[in-house]
Amino acid sequence: MPKPEASPIFPAVVENSAAPGPVLIVCEHASRAFPAPWGDLGLSAAETAAHIAWDPGALGLARGLAERLGAGLVHAPVSRLIYDCNRPPDAPGAMAERSEHYQIPGNSGLTPAQRLQRVEAVYLPFHAGLAAEIARRMVLGPPPVIVTVHSFTPVWFGQKRAVEFGIIHDADPRLAEAVLREAAGCGLEVQMNAPYAAADGVTHLLRRQALPLGLMNVMLEVRNDLIATAEAEAAMADRLAPALARAVAQVAAPIAA
Amino acid sequence: MPKPEASPIFPAVVENSAAPGPVLIVCEHASRAFPAPWGDLGLSAAETAAHIAWDPGALGLARGLAERLGAGLVHAPVSRLIYDCNRPPDAPGAMAERSEHYQIPGNSGLTPAQRLQRVEAVYLPFHAGLAAEIARRMVLGPPPVIVTVHSFTPVWFGQKRAVEFGIIHDADPRLAEAVLREAAGCGLEVQMNAPYAAADGVTHLLRRQALPLGLMNVMLEVRNDLIATAEAEAAMADRLAPALARAVAQVAAPIAA
Repeated sequence: MPKPEASPIFPAVVENSAAPGPVLIVCEHASRAFPAPWGDLGLSAAETAAHIAWDPGALGLARGLAERLGAGLVHAPVSRLIYDCNRPPDAPGAMAERSEHYQIPGNSGLTPAQRLQRVEAVYLPFHAGLAAEIARRMVLGPPPVIVTVHSFTPVWFGQKRAVEFGIIHDADPRLAEAVLREAAGCGLEVQMNAPYAAADGVTHLLRRQALPLGLMNVMLEVRNDLIATAEAEAAMADRLAPALARAVAQVAAPIAA
Repeated sequence: MPKPEASPIFPAVVENSAAPGPVLIVCEHASRAFPAPWGDLGLSAAETAAHIAWDPGALGLARGLAERLGAGLVHAPVSRLIYDCNRPPDAPGAMAERSEHYQIPGNSGLTPAQRLQRVEAVYLPFHAGLAAEIARRMVLGPPPVIVTVHSFTPVWFGQKRAVEFGIIHDADPRLAEAVLREAAGCGLEVQMNAPYAAADGVTHLLRRQALPLGLMNVMLEVRNDLIATAEAEAAMADRLAPALARAVAQVAAPIAA
């Protein structure tokens, strides 16, 4: 096991910082990088490319949406299995020992010091960087609208999932409800709070970064078989961007603020 | 006016980091320091020593409580008039142009760039430092209990305030209710949500640092004429610490978690 004193820092990656639009897209599960000092956590190459390690297609879709919406983008630079930036430090899923039917050997029996090293290397820098980008936008322009972009696997524990586009909210459902309305004609099987909901512990980022500041927010989940190539990512961005733009315009309007 | 490119950083001050107890005390208004590049904001010496600049007695009381409770302590190193770390970046009160009947000349007509400089120099480092201390405690020990310590002026816009000890909560009132019960016999005029309440915008720190992590939390306000000397601060710490310890033991117990 690497020693806790080997403590690199993996800052949040910020793209399109000068983008003019109100939307700030966040992609916590963008990366399948397994850098030192942790390495591949004892996983095979196939496992480090699987949905347990990252959200396949999510970063490409996020970049496509950012381009079409004139939005900023913040994403995490290491695999969610090193540290899942959408989980608080005391959540078992922050450094999961098990994901679906996979065991993660390098996450088994971590000491508190080893857990703290990952919190300090990944979780805190990511959230500090995102908080800085949000604060910058709050001061220099209109309040940012926080849209997190995720993907999910079409088969989970052997069950096929019918939902193609999930819209998830926490305590403030306004933007989620607007997206649901505006996505009605997009040709996808759209569901609210599917395949996950806040009760499953998946809205940490919204709770930590958007709700305390009164910012409009929503979590988007796209089934990953629909964004499996660069072309498919772009097509999905084409499909979703107009609905998102209309939804954001509704909730970001002064009358609804 | 100083130029925005002169950007020092004022980190959160952490004391008693190795303290064994579950309580983490936070004192956002501990300081009446007016460092460069801002200086005294055009205020007189009397004004920079007044309650508009800081919470007189709060840091002394916070240190006294930390000692008696075996608690950690995090405090801000500059005046709330430079940046009020208990306010979000878009709040007018974050860099107040006016406080009670005082005008703050150096806060008048700030440009967005000047506001951003203070956010980046004071607000973001304070909250990042506090978040790191909270995360460290969450990983290494029991979930920290967040207690913010403030003081208020006995006369506000000419009105005398009868309340001596105010207990303020946001969405989770459990610890506040326990403190109210346990402070009943402490010999002070105790009131819930006085002289301020969450609706006045005074619970940003609780919303930002405690609620998203499910941590027990409360904001305490002591009338500053009761903690006007080092002896009075110590006497108030003696008076409040036992009630706080009993309240924390109730809510931090596994059965109530």
